[in-house]
Amino acid sequence: MNNQSSYLLVKDIGEQGLLQILQRFCPKEIIGDDAAVITTELGQSLVVTTDVLVDKIHFSELTTSAVDVGWRAAAANLSDLAAMGASPLGITVGLGLPGDVSVSWVEQMYVGMTQCLQQYNTPIVGGDVVRSPVITIAITAFGQAYPQQIIRRHQAQVGDRIIVTGVHGASRAGLELLLHPEKGENLSPEETKALIRTHQRPQPRLDVLPILWQILGSSYTLKPPHPYTPISHLPVSGMDSSDGLADALVQICRASNVGAVVERTQIPSPPAFAHWLTQEQALQYSLYGGEDFELVLCLPKEPAYKLVQMLGQGAAAIGEITNGSTVVLHDQKQEFPDQVLTLSQGFQHFG
Amino acid sequence: MNNQSSYLLVKDIGEQGLLQILQRFCPKEIIGDDAAVITTELGQSLVVTTDVLVDKIHFSELTTSAVDVGWRAAAANLSDLAAMGASPLGITVGLGLPGDVSVSWVEQMYVGMTQCLQQYNTPIVGGDVVRSPVITIAITAFGQAYPQQIIRRHQAQVGDRIIVTGVHGASRAGLELLLHPEKGENLSPEETKALIRTHQRPQPRLDVLPILWQILGSSYTLKPPHPYTPISHLPVSGMDSSDGLADALVQICRASNVGAVVERTQIPSPPAFAHWLTQEQALQYSLYGGEDFELVLCLPKEPAYKLVQMLGQGAAAIGEITNGSTVVLHDQKQEFPDQVLTLSQGFQHFG
Repeated sequence: MNNQSSYLLVKDIGEQGLLQILQRFCPKEIIGDDAAVITTELGQSLVVTTDVLVDKIHFSELTTSAVDVGWRAAAANLSDLAAMGASPLGITVGLGLPGDVSVSWVEQMYVGMTQCLQQYNTPIVGGDVVRSPVITIAITAFGQAYPQQIIRRHQAQVGDRIIVTGVHGASRAGLELLLHPEKGENLSPEETKALIRTHQRPQPRLDVLPILWQILGSSYTLKPPHPYTPISHLPVSGMDSSDGLADALVQICRASNVGAVVERTQIPSPPAFAHWLTQEQALQYSLYGGEDFELVLCLPKEPAYKLVQMLGQGAAAIGEITNGSTVVLHDQKQEFPDQVLTLSQGFQHFG
Repeated sequence: MNNQSSYLLVKDIGEQGLLQILQRFCPKEIIGDDAAVITTELGQSLVVTTDVLVDKIHFSELTTSAVDVGWRAAAANLSDLAAMGASPLGITVGLGLPGDVSVSWVEQMYVGMTQCLQQYNTPIVGGDVVRSPVITIAITAFGQAYPQQIIRRHQAQVGDRIIVTGVHGASRAGLELLLHPEKGENLSPEETKALIRTHQRPQPRLDVLPILWQILGSSYTLKPPHPYTPISHLPVSGMDSSDGLADALVQICRASNVGAVVERTQIPSPPAFAHWLTQEQALQYSLYGGEDFELVLCLPKEPAYKLVQMLGQGAAAIGEITNGSTVVLHDQKQEFPDQVLTLSQGFQHFG
């Protein structure tokens, strides 16, 4: 960031001035036309996802710096691509900005987006900047995937094991610690820092995909299929847990017309939860906290356990797809009665 | 639209309820996952553009019904694709909505988008709905084009003729008549209606593309090139005139490091202007009015004149690319002195 811009407001430099600054974050050969041009690889499908974030609703200056706002926005969209089995190609960024936002806030937000995107060589390929009474960030991300590698929600099969790629509840805990630092008195400074970091800098799990393809059959990654070869889908379905683990489980089962049994004790939460929260609090955070951006995948027993083993670090098999129509939370130790999970706690309502 | 929903507010049914209604406007096979999957044709590049529209800044209930807001938003994005030489594949729609917006407003907006998109078999492939203090519509459109057919701004050549695909100033005049109906007393009701219609229901000029390819060499549209064939670009450059004709001329010349001479009397305006506005007023509307969504194309003399002839209806050759660095507005009749066009009147400032 240059010093000159830190005192400027958006209204001082106008749309064109701001666009000139923001274009520094985009590849030169791609910008400057009515639209961006991206080349997909032969035989791959295009995968597209979009998200809108609004100031004071989806982020807040209290808990999130401009850099983190940018990182989180990029991470959420890349996580949607990971959840579809797609490799990112680029994102567009539509910005609505009040005139009194500082130019440096916008620049820092772009720094955060770029930092997250650079891990995956993903460029910002275009965007729009307009005046608005509220800071609004609309991101659309594009990726590519071979048709038979696309991971959908509706293909979970009875008997599939349900895998999570990492611990759940950390992001929600990090937010709580930012809002109420006093609640963390039983945590070590390292534990507190780690939980807050997970909230501010979530990692989309694009790293899971090559491991998954390797387990399910490496031939798919090495050559594009002939365009007229009939597609046989790989035996995997799922989504990300951005709206909470419970939400993901219910959505997958609904879309696939199946049920599930999930083992309460198998749901992985951050180690710090054990000496910080009651069992019930930890479970609430893990099931309904949201924004963990892990993948929830359903696949046959053998590749499922192999995936957990290869991922390590918090990955776990948490249950099994059943012939039923509900997601049942079961307790092997029988301390708690069975419980049916619903979507209701995962919703965002209009007020 | 069903009657039941006309009394409902967005906050009555929440995000999930609204998404269920809006998903009726999307193809079934595409929705319901973390992202949409679109198939591009072999050998084509992906073309992506994004626009953000904010209530009371980019549209107003005074002049624009919900249906028209939707139509115009879709048309603007399709126009960007047309300006790149790309055929549309789909759009995503990110919506920010206050809770007290009626569900029927949102539905009607989708009706308008769909009406415009259906002309080009273009689906709404996904989106996001969030709470916001101000109605915000963020659209991202995707298209495909053979790499050598992509129309860029920076390739205008000295000697190219400058073509507009239709009249300019009609949209601005239509807006004026909506805001101040009394100004139209010298116009026939048909003329008034036609100008207002042009403002409310602009047509993206995707129809120009097949004619352009036919003139420049039909082989390009019939078969995809071998992926390793070196690309030789077609001799055409340009953009759309959504931000005004003057803006388009200056942008193309800047990007191409050339100048232009534009003949004042050749700029086509709606016939009604002749008996309604002074020559100077008509020129202001045509140069700076904006939102005409015509294409401004630069190509060699012979195909240029052929294109004008085949398009008919307001298409015109308005000038020539020169060795200079400015866009000069010239008057063959020498009634007016030469004038250099600048971007300044085309800008939108933050207030």
